[in-house]
Amino acid sequence: MLKIAVIGAGRIGHVHARSVAAHPDAELVLASDPFGDAAENLAKEYGARFTKDADEVFADPDVDAVIIGSPTDLHLGQLIAAAKAGKAVLCEKPIALEVAKVDQVQAELDKINTPVMFGFNRRFDPSFAAAVDAAKSGKIGTVEQVTIISRDPAAPPAQYLTGSGGIFCDMTIHDFDMARHILGDVVEVSAFGQNFNADIKAIGDFDAAVIVLRSSTGAIATITNDRACAPGYDQRLEIHGTSGSVSIDNVRPTTLRLNNSEVTAAQQPYLDFFLERYADAYSRELSAFIKAVSTGEKPNPGIEDAVAALRLADAATVSAHEGHAVSLV
Amino acid sequence: MLKIAVIGAGRIGHVHARSVAAHPDAELVLASDPFGDAAENLAKEYGARFTKDADEVFADPDVDAVIIGSPTDLHLGQLIAAAKAGKAVLCEKPIALEVAKVDQVQAELDKINTPVMFGFNRRFDPSFAAAVDAAKSGKIGTVEQVTIISRDPAAPPAQYLTGSGGIFCDMTIHDFDMARHILGDVVEVSAFGQNFNADIKAIGDFDAAVIVLRSSTGAIATITNDRACAPGYDQRLEIHGTSGSVSIDNVRPTTLRLNNSEVTAAQQPYLDFFLERYADAYSRELSAFIKAVSTGEKPNPGIEDAVAALRLADAATVSAHEGHAVSLV
Amino acid sequence: MLKIAVIGAGRIGHVHARSVAAHPDAELVLASDPFGDAAENLAKEYGARFTKDADEVFADPDVDAVIIGSPTDLHLGQLIAAAKAGKAVLCEKPIALEVAKVDQVQAELDKINTPVMFGFNRRFDPSFAAAVDAAKSGKIGTVEQVTIISRDPAAPPAQYLTGSGGIFCDMTIHDFDMARHILGDVVEVSAFGQNFNADIKAIGDFDAAVIVLRSSTGAIATITNDRACAPGYDQRLEIHGTSGSVSIDNVRPTTLRLNNSEVTAAQQPYLDFFLERYADAYSRELSAFIKAVSTGEKPNPGIEDAVAALRLADAATVSAHEGHAVSLV
Amino acid sequence: MLKIAVIGAGRIGHVHARSVAAHPDAELVLASDPFGDAAENLAKEYGARFTKDADEVFADPDVDAVIIGSPTDLHLGQLIAAAKAGKAVLCEKPIALEVAKVDQVQAELDKINTPVMFGFNRRFDPSFAAAVDAAKSGKIGTVEQVTIISRDPAAPPAQYLTGSGGIFCDMTIHDFDMARHILGDVVEVSAFGQNFNADIKAIGDFDAAVIVLRSSTGAIATITNDRACAPGYDQRLEIHGTSGSVSIDNVRPTTLRLNNSEVTAAQQPYLDFFLERYADAYSRELSAFIKAVSTGEKPNPGIEDAVAALRLADAATVSAHEGHAVSLV
Repeated sequence: MLKIAVIGAGRIGHVHARSVAAHPDAELVLASDPFGDAAENLAKEYGARFTKDADEVFADPDVDAVIIGSPTDLHLGQLIAAAKAGKAVLCEKPIALEVAKVDQVQAELDKINTPVMFGFNRRFDPSFAAAVDAAKSGKIGTVEQVTIISRDPAAPPAQYLTGSGGIFCDMTIHDFDMARHILGDVVEVSAFGQNFNADIKAIGDFDAAVIVLRSSTGAIATITNDRACAPGYDQRLEIHGTSGSVSIDNVRPTTLRLNNSEVTAAQQPYLDFFLERYADAYSRELSAFIKAVSTGEKPNPGIEDAVAALRLADAATVSAHEGHAVSLV
Repeated sequence: MLKIAVIGAGRIGHVHARSVAAHPDAELVLASDPFGDAAENLAKEYGARFTKDADEVFADPDVDAVIIGSPTDLHLGQLIAAAKAGKAVLCEKPIALEVAKVDQVQAELDKINTPVMFGFNRRFDPSFAAAVDAAKSGKIGTVEQVTIISRDPAAPPAQYLTGSGGIFCDMTIHDFDMARHILGDVVEVSAFGQNFNADIKAIGDFDAAVIVLRSSTGAIATITNDRACAPGYDQRLEIHGTSGSVSIDNVRPTTLRLNNSEVTAAQQPYLDFFLERYADAYSRELSAFIKAVSTGEKPNPGIEDAVAALRLADAATVSAHEGHAVSLV
Repeated sequence: MLKIAVIGAGRIGHVHARSVAAHPDAELVLASDPFGDAAENLAKEYGARFTKDADEVFADPDVDAVIIGSPTDLHLGQLIAAAKAGKAVLCEKPIALEVAKVDQVQAELDKINTPVMFGFNRRFDPSFAAAVDAAKSGKIGTVEQVTIISRDPAAPPAQYLTGSGGIFCDMTIHDFDMARHILGDVVEVSAFGQNFNADIKAIGDFDAAVIVLRSSTGAIATITNDRACAPGYDQRLEIHGTSGSVSIDNVRPTTLRLNNSEVTAAQQPYLDFFLERYADAYSRELSAFIKAVSTGEKPNPGIEDAVAALRLADAATVSAHEGHAVSLV
Repeated sequence: MLKIAVIGAGRIGHVHARSVAAHPDAELVLASDPFGDAAENLAKEYGARFTKDADEVFADPDVDAVIIGSPTDLHLGQLIAAAKAGKAVLCEKPIALEVAKVDQVQAELDKINTPVMFGFNRRFDPSFAAAVDAAKSGKIGTVEQVTIISRDPAAPPAQYLTGSGGIFCDMTIHDFDMARHILGDVVEVSAFGQNFNADIKAIGDFDAAVIVLRSSTGAIATITNDRACAPGYDQRLEIHGTSGSVSIDNVRPTTLRLNNSEVTAAQQPYLDFFLERYADAYSRELSAFIKAVSTGEKPNPGIEDAVAALRLADAATVSAHEGHAVSLV
């Protein structure tokens, strides 16, 4: 029974706490959040202890593993503190907002040698995983082109995005990881930012973007992002190889189809939120983490994946502003 | 070059005339219709001669083959007359409205030995044909159950239906032929009529029906008919076998799909009329007829198919009114 | 917190126990099964007590509600015993194998007035429920025809089926309930049995069947059953109304589609088992039961639904053997 | 009756000749091709005259309109000659291989004022047209992102491609026109070439590519090309707007779907060749040309569209080789 603490009792903290509670081999023992009653409320729901001070989590001998779901600018500090305290860590994405700070942390973690895994949940979604497996199994030959469509239902308030690190770091980061997961090393990044939302433009961020990644094999991944999508949370992937292709479609709440004099075979809007869409993925992600910790295998995706995705976000930001491809080799 | 005459210059006559005109090995030479300018108008469109008198068609030495698209009650007489005159015949369905009259005609035709084919156009539709081929090729194992959905977009006026022979003879006849085409001999018919349309009820006909056919192999075909279907002309088939199944979907005018906050993947209504839906089928049917005539092979579907379908319609009428299965063996 | 006991620690008992454990307002307190370690094993998994004797369940003052998942021939006796002991009851389908015994039980239960609900789980499946809701909301006009396809992946051993009551009672019972749920009173049943499996034929049962139900409104439901279906557990429904139709498709494990030189848009086989396919439905069914018990509302589907479905099964058996429609009015 | 001559009796010349023959308001009067029996063979099929010398076409007073389907390097010269002779012209794409030569021709044509239309056939495909109409009608709000997938079934021999002007000029030209048709003016082009085919690389061309176009409205179109695609001729489009999106899928020969223990809902491979896929489009294109000529309306797409697409191809070539975006303003 792995004793787990959750740091950050917000939306994502609740998702992880629920997965922990439902997992036969894990137990939520502690929740931490500095704000108001957040930690207490979360803890009570699952019969755990709580604290406002994350340091108490690291110091607690009864905690085996820590799930970090705090604001991004706290990730690096908490990661190091947890690792130094000998805890296994599952950290939310992105690892940080700036590439510059990450190298030193990575070096420190390498010395400590504790299991550290990062929350690229899409890798654990049954549909994304099935597509990636099909591609890796050789079922479609050699991969030549990957098309990722990734759109949110509606943009959050610009204010929320102020500390997000920008669309590439906050939103595309998942797609960067998925592209790397399929293609391996990316050698060139070209990004094209779009501004349809005046509030988001005012804070110097893009609200839509296209990114073209070239891998070391010559394959290209194209990512299309938009903060807004009327039909719902639009998450699709297609992998085109020399002998075939696989794709995954959006998920709807039911298989219902409607036919009338206006439309036929009409399905419902897509699931409208990432927590709904990736509910299974979060729980499978936790299982993978628990399994890695218990078997001693290196957790995957690891810190090198978190850093690589952040580097892509950084390169995309440069490319989008400077109008040329950015080489990563 | 097969010289073809069309008898009956109504809607279906025009369809056949167009197919003849477009066929590289056939030529429309004569059109016949007793009413008004119908024959003349059709003939002029394709540079053919015309007459009000069908007997002139049979007597014309310059006519090799006759397509009979006249009202059903004229079919048998014209069929015999054309055959006696040595013409090849492509006759529209149904062969007649009453089984009683058919036996003698079939006996006469057997003696004459001229090519006679019947217009069960659905056998020539690329999608229906592909499903039947898949089933016959053994791709889905032994056929156990067939589900046919066949609905018209909207009921014709009750007045039009007065001389139609009833829903089983006029509408289900196509589905009966398709079921026989897939399953072979039918040994038992059970039919269930429905009345939602008061005008059609008033003339003693049903406007919707379900028919269950049991074949000599033990397989069952279920046919669901309705004279009205808001999303369009609804024509589907599923064949379920021991190792798999095949189905065919409705056809839409384009592959367009619409996604918005109400619906996703919404397609357009089905093609709205049998002439549109089966345009290809009519032209492939004509090709099969011309090929049979030119090679001397027996045309298929032949008169035994026309008679068998009519017998099923007759049995269905009895079953629907008497509330029990009707055995055909 | 509703204290629940499970009677019958087989496959279905485990499904219900898991739902109870996951439900925030319910608690599994007791499991009963006369065979081997079944009750003990189930109980230990969820921290409950156990017994080999169902009578101890009825006598236990700490049990508020009982879920009956025992063999069908025990249902009626346990139902009465639980009700007399003042327990709420959720009973698996079918209520019994013979209509004859049910009337008296229904009369007794009416006097006792305890909440009794029956496990027609499909009513609680999100897709089936969405289709039924759409039909009942008037979105497709007046319902005219219902098409239910319901096939199992593979037949159980004939031996297992010996005590099942036959295909109509054991398998079609779900479809009978669904047809009634959509159409209301059924006035006429016609059934057509099929025998492809020699072992099942040897025990006097059918392994496939088509059933036609006529409702008091004139609408017709067609049910197509097969004990075997190579692509998986085939569960579909289409409701055709005067202004449109709704349908629900099978569920696959992911949204993956494969394209190559042989096939395009190929999806995976359907979920292969009812426990997987209806996992959500079982948990929503339990929620509905708990809500009914806690609010005092009459549980739905109730005993009248269980009895009505059994009467349809009985009528279908007669119809299939005698070759005529069986009237229920 | 428009009297039409076809210049170039190759594959595309035959396509146009067939459309002309089938059109009620047009007649094929003359075919020209300098090689072997090509012109004669084509002409005989449709009862037209023939010549080896294109100049005879321009000089022929009995020719109203000319369809130019000759090799690309002849287009400009024949276009001017035909226009000077007072013929209406339908010219195949691309207008030329080099932008440099086009300006002068465009200036000359402007002075002559004869109807000149270019063969961007996809604009006339029912599915592409339906998607574009939906977008232009405001049904999906303001267009933000366009995704075009356009892959050929298999690469032609490298030798054939030697004089093609490269992938952007030969293949992407259709997608450039479609992007412009939807988005209007393109202000920036970024292209990414890929080399998987060694033969094509050896002649200095790419065999796959991704192109990102930014329009003056800020919308972005992403085009993904590949010379090879195992499932067939892959031609899809998605237009994402502020209130919804439309997409069009590939076309298969039938609506057949196959279900077995390996795959479900599997469709057939896509139509395997552009002549099959766009058969309707070619005939609708001809109708639009004939209508423009007969009404005196300016044909659309006109020379400015042909030139604009060529400029995009030119810019893409520069971008792909130099690794930066190319501005067109």
